[in-house]
Amino acid sequence: MWHLYHFPLCPFSRKVQLALAEKKVPFALQLAYPWDNDDLFHSLNPAGKTPVMRHAERGLTLADSQAICEYFEEVEQRAPLLPGSAQARAEIRRLVAMFDDALYTDVTAPLMHEKMKKRLFLRQSPDSQVLRRATRLLHDHLDYIDWLIDNNRWLGGAQLSLADFAAAAQLSVIDYLDSLDWSGHDSARGWYRVIKSRPSFAPLLSQRMEGLPPPRHYSDVNA
Amino acid sequence: MWHLYHFPLCPFSRKVQLALAEKKVPFALQLAYPWDNDDLFHSLNPAGKTPVMRHAERGLTLADSQAICEYFEEVEQRAPLLPGSAQARAEIRRLVAMFDDALYTDVTAPLMHEKMKKRLFLRQSPDSQVLRRATRLLHDHLDYIDWLIDNNRWLGGAQLSLADFAAAAQLSVIDYLDSLDWSGHDSARGWYRVIKSRPSFAPLLSQRMEGLPPPRHYSDVNA
Repeated sequence: MWHLYHFPLCPFSRKVQLALAEKKVPFALQLAYPWDNDDLFHSLNPAGKTPVMRHAERGLTLADSQAICEYFEEVEQRAPLLPGSAQARAEIRRLVAMFDDALYTDVTAPLMHEKMKKRLFLRQSPDSQVLRRATRLLHDHLDYIDWLIDNNRWLGGAQLSLADFAAAAQLSVIDYLDSLDWSGHDSARGWYRVIKSRPSFAPLLSQRMEGLPPPRHYSDVNA
Repeated sequence: MWHLYHFPLCPFSRKVQLALAEKKVPFALQLAYPWDNDDLFHSLNPAGKTPVMRHAERGLTLADSQAICEYFEEVEQRAPLLPGSAQARAEIRRLVAMFDDALYTDVTAPLMHEKMKKRLFLRQSPDSQVLRRATRLLHDHLDYIDWLIDNNRWLGGAQLSLADFAAAAQLSVIDYLDSLDWSGHDSARGWYRVIKSRPSFAPLLSQRMEGLPPPRHYSDVNA
């Protein structure tokens, strides 16, 4: 049995959860907070980051969300996450990297620091200047998602792909932190609503970060 | 003909250069400084980062160093960069991500800021505290490379792989900036010397960042 080491608001663990659920790979969740400096967890992933996948019976450990997704793409053909030609796959991987890197660094990471870490561990108020900057950059990313959806059925092209799940994973954390402002982004909003209503997304809507409840609309698939 | 948009000290462009040279894919270099905010370049890669590969005749544009490497791994079987089973490939990808993310963020990026950007554009002296922190973290990464090499022939396992080129690309930039301290890292040093003497590495040793000459030992394959 696969175990996914994660914490509820880790966007990269969410990306893996979506990918596994789409491919119908069974797995159990195992809570791991990277900031706990747990020796066992660090022995599984020297980078000290979630997600990590572990299959104890087979002695397999996988780390890094993209390496994990590529692994399951290779061993489980069902529900391809990187469909199409080498060129189409390169475009999907470009977008995944952009959401994993830029959207995370610009928006998700600062919001997690200001609204999650400061509240749960540092007992500080969020810095409104950092929040404003993240909100401004979020609009740039949503503009780009609007543009992609205005030109294609899905973010990565004609087919649903890992690009959609990578973007949705980041946005779901931003939404949990009550910072997802859709104003002026009808195309992106319509696309997200479709992803949010997929069965693979349902577990994300029920997971809770202890001490940090989401806004009421978060788990409403019609919101 | 493929064009690689890069600048001489971009570690991710170096990773792609090594991969292409190993696979004997012909390409021409095209200088692009991401900080120039050039519209043409941004139209090729909205993330505004090097490397970008462009094949004008075929109308192909590829961005993100890992997406580029995965593309050429799929279309050019020669000199596999991700050899072995799905599990072996996952391990190589984990290491590539670790060098691309953690080694870059901990060491290469702060050194590039302090020793390249401050000197060339900001006309400021480097912050010795930042340099000390980067040096300390470099030793942690070199410890890990020592450990990998003490347990395997190459970083990713029994075969040369993209893990070796990803690590060497970062270290080559650190070396260009005269910050590669091998003391206590004989295993890593021996491994790097082997990579540095490969024909694919030679172009990196001759490329120069304008206004920022490397230390003399940089281009000496025996150093």
